[in-house]
Amino acid sequence: MAILERSDSGAIARLTLNHPEKLNALSDAMMAALQEQFDALAQDDTIRVVILAGTGKAFCAGHDLKEMTQGRQAADGGRAYFADLFTRCGRVMTSIRNLPQPVIAQPHGIATAAGCQLVASCDMAVAAEGTRFGVNGVNIGLFCSTPMVALSRNIPRKQAFEMLTTGQFIDADRALELGLINRAVPHDDLEAATDALANTVAAKLGAAVRIGKRAFYDQLEMPLDQAYAYTGDVMVENMLYRDTAEGIAAFLEKRSPDWDQT
Amino acid sequence: MAILERSDSGAIARLTLNHPEKLNALSDAMMAALQEQFDALAQDDTIRVVILAGTGKAFCAGHDLKEMTQGRQAADGGRAYFADLFTRCGRVMTSIRNLPQPVIAQPHGIATAAGCQLVASCDMAVAAEGTRFGVNGVNIGLFCSTPMVALSRNIPRKQAFEMLTTGQFIDADRALELGLINRAVPHDDLEAATDALANTVAAKLGAAVRIGKRAFYDQLEMPLDQAYAYTGDVMVENMLYRDTAEGIAAFLEKRSPDWDQT
Amino acid sequence: MAILERSDSGAIARLTLNHPEKLNALSDAMMAALQEQFDALAQDDTIRVVILAGTGKAFCAGHDLKEMTQGRQAADGGRAYFADLFTRCGRVMTSIRNLPQPVIAQPHGIATAAGCQLVASCDMAVAAEGTRFGVNGVNIGLFCSTPMVALSRNIPRKQAFEMLTTGQFIDADRALELGLINRAVPHDDLEAATDALANTVAAKLGAAVRIGKRAFYDQLEMPLDQAYAYTGDVMVENMLYRDTAEGIAAFLEKRSPDWDQT
Repeated sequence: MAILERSDSGAIARLTLNHPEKLNALSDAMMAALQEQFDALAQDDTIRVVILAGTGKAFCAGHDLKEMTQGRQAADGGRAYFADLFTRCGRVMTSIRNLPQPVIAQPHGIATAAGCQLVASCDMAVAAEGTRFGVNGVNIGLFCSTPMVALSRNIPRKQAFEMLTTGQFIDADRALELGLINRAVPHDDLEAATDALANTVAAKLGAAVRIGKRAFYDQLEMPLDQAYAYTGDVMVENMLYRDTAEGIAAFLEKRSPDWDQT
Repeated sequence: MAILERSDSGAIARLTLNHPEKLNALSDAMMAALQEQFDALAQDDTIRVVILAGTGKAFCAGHDLKEMTQGRQAADGGRAYFADLFTRCGRVMTSIRNLPQPVIAQPHGIATAAGCQLVASCDMAVAAEGTRFGVNGVNIGLFCSTPMVALSRNIPRKQAFEMLTTGQFIDADRALELGLINRAVPHDDLEAATDALANTVAAKLGAAVRIGKRAFYDQLEMPLDQAYAYTGDVMVENMLYRDTAEGIAAFLEKRSPDWDQT
Repeated sequence: MAILERSDSGAIARLTLNHPEKLNALSDAMMAALQEQFDALAQDDTIRVVILAGTGKAFCAGHDLKEMTQGRQAADGGRAYFADLFTRCGRVMTSIRNLPQPVIAQPHGIATAAGCQLVASCDMAVAAEGTRFGVNGVNIGLFCSTPMVALSRNIPRKQAFEMLTTGQFIDADRALELGLINRAVPHDDLEAATDALANTVAAKLGAAVRIGKRAFYDQLEMPLDQAYAYTGDVMVENMLYRDTAEGIAAFLEKRSPDWDQT
């Protein structure tokens, strides 16, 4: 078994972190495997939704601290290795945003530090009830500065600050209240609930979702007038898709659309 | 009856979308009528609050898809028409933010796509219980890229993404939890509840609310230091208003202010 | 008794607004006293958490309106005085963000106008149940334009706009829902609850919390790629701290860390 499994079903790709004895830590090998899959998916028009799940007791427990500690043995005390590590990790996280497909996290057990960052970096998340989320690096003297980039763009500021400086966990119900996840479901229903959400999105016109996802994040970082100018152009492009013309025509004629998309 | 009715009561202007057979769609004519009213209100110091409501079964069901489809018959397949359409629509939406008066949306029934954008673009919103909100263009292959500009500035990111990519609706209770609206009231109380909120705001010093509303949105797009420098200047200007001096003096003397504002 | 009391306990500094007959208003003297303490704390490595509380019936009722009114007697009607006042006030508020230590507000009674701004400006807040929060300057003709800078970075936009233009108060339960505070506890438990949160944070590695707090606010104002590049560098610096190496080693060896930090 590989440390990252991929199984496709129709237009849905399911990636499963599969290194349970390490609580699916984001080791160098795991980050490389994720990056390889994301790079492949970015080019794959047949996939319209990606799910990110994990095996074992935890979704993901963050970085691999043993591996990081070994990095200290270099002549520079690890500086160059750590710089490269966080660059690679940031690229994995921003690849999720930059993927044309929506990515749904499916956390269970625990999602801590960079594991919590993975959840926050996905476009949506369906969690098992009881899942615990934390950015608890501060407990060992390492503030979760990169995880907070994603976390602080998901939940209100004072609540993010509290998690980061206390290291305390929140459960799935609280994560739902705060906006970190979209749904909390019984563990036995977890995969089915994620699949249901994925199927809903996969049934849409992939080209429209792709142009929309990119526009979603891009416009968030623009002032209002610029955001409207940009998304107005996106709407024009979207209107001119053949399948969108067909989708609108079908709606007006109260029939199902005959899309080229299969 | 015009497709956009206006009725004033004291310092409150009530605009009512009134094309129920089209579910108050934002047709070319409706957008032109809204723009005309907003342009007039921007110059009208006697109005201190604007309400935006609708007649019939729906507050507003978004763009007029039949009219948009007719636009495809141009030699360029509609490109120039659509570009102009989304420019005009963006101008209607940003006019709400740029109006000196607070604008309160009063949605009922459904508010979808650009109709949901109208609600999100208003400064506040009072909804009838049971109102359904959606950015469901994705269901027909047209991602709600311009509505998301307003929506994503009202509610948390993952929840906005879910609405945009699933096309699923949220009800008024959920809209209240997420921050899209300020109040959900029984349908029979809707107009009274909106009027009560409007009256509360209209009783304030209009000049102070005007300078404050502009500053509210401007400072949101600034870094913190710049936001304080800018709003500090706004406070100084506000302090030097004759009616503000009188308002503060009256408060210190425990009496009602004698404002020039009538 | 000074109008601002300070008492330290271990690595925690407690500042107490102590001018109850003025409802702890942010008079010129109070702002100067706060600024002096913040400037001293910024240089003090032995303090790892700051608490900001108040005596009497109110946490803080905002600016000192009598003093401001006296400022009008200057030849320029107060313009220069007000400009200086809001510059000083903005510096007090941004000093909280710029302090290396987390600052916890401990509001009770009422926190209005610049008093509400103080709460919003702190990194976290523990409130007494029943505390009322408002940005109610609009009631006397003075829109709370500077308080809204902090408030609108804590709670959703439509809810902030409503508070600012209606002048209406929210209670501690609602403040908790909206994200303005972290906890609401019975008044009798207030100090103990704040101390408990402060102690939790003070037990962490101070150097990690310091570098993390600064990064938290800085990265919030950056686009995503820049935020990751910046916080990646922060993580590298943090990894190279002697106490962080020891913290990680201790965690891997399942023992308590032997930190230089006392």
